[in-house]
Amino acid sequence: MYQLKLMSWLEAVLWNEHELVPAIAQDAVSGRVLTLAWMNREALELTATTREAHYWSRSRAKLWRKGESSGHAQRVLEIRLDCDSDAILLIVAQEGGISCHTGHARCFYQRLENYAWHDVEPVLKDPKEIYGDG
Amino acid sequence: MYQLKLMSWLEAVLWNEHELVPAIAQDAVSGRVLTLAWMNREALELTATTREAHYWSRSRAKLWRKGESSGHAQRVLEIRLDCDSDAILLIVAQEGGISCHTGHARCFYQRLENYAWHDVEPVLKDPKEIYGDG
Repeated sequence: MYQLKLMSWLEAVLWNEHELVPAIAQDAVSGRVLTLAWMNREALELTATTREAHYWSRSRAKLWRKGESSGHAQRVLEIRLDCDSDAILLIVAQEGGISCHTGHARCFYQRLENYAWHDVEPVLKDPKEIYGDG
Repeated sequence: MYQLKLMSWLEAVLWNEHELVPAIAQDAVSGRVLTLAWMNREALELTATTREAHYWSRSRAKLWRKGESSGHAQRVLEIRLDCDSDAILLIVAQEGGISCHTGHARCFYQRLENYAWHDVEPVLKDPKEIYGDG
């Protein structure tokens, strides 16, 4: 019965031709939109069952728990689905106040001004410090 | 020169295999995430030059100005790009306080509870009233 329900809510999502869905993460406290990443079924199921954001990395072609190498996990307070069931919104508590691999608070730090993109938010932590020197 | 700059900021975007990019719209006042839609180059360029959100409808395969049939336009206050240049965030003023074609305030009105999706926000206006009876 549990398995049936589980399948049912996952199958309600309209997965794209790559079996993925875009997932927005929004900070529960500041309201800022932090990241847009992608999920496959396993990522969404793990996100729901563990309440930690999991994504599918398209560049590395692997499942990934947000924060597994950076420590910047996203604790998931709410999972939402849009009207046509092809986009997810997570309301999250962002560990460390940094969601971007560049060390910015969030990924959307470039703003269009006079038809050019400008970085308008600071780097809070050097990526070398976040990920180690290699 | 203007044309050169215009091309340059548009080409900085990492368009997907369908020449599209996902675009999140966030309400400037409430901070709520309203919609996730898709843009092609023309939609993004028109959004920047007119400051009214334009999208590419994948289902209808046509460019569309948000609000052209519903009246629920999105006036664009900010356009942002993410770290890897493959997602757009618009900060908008939502005309009529309704962004969803279902008459909900926003598209993300389904919330996951006990492994089922539940509508947790009201319909503010009957779609028949928004779009006319046919």
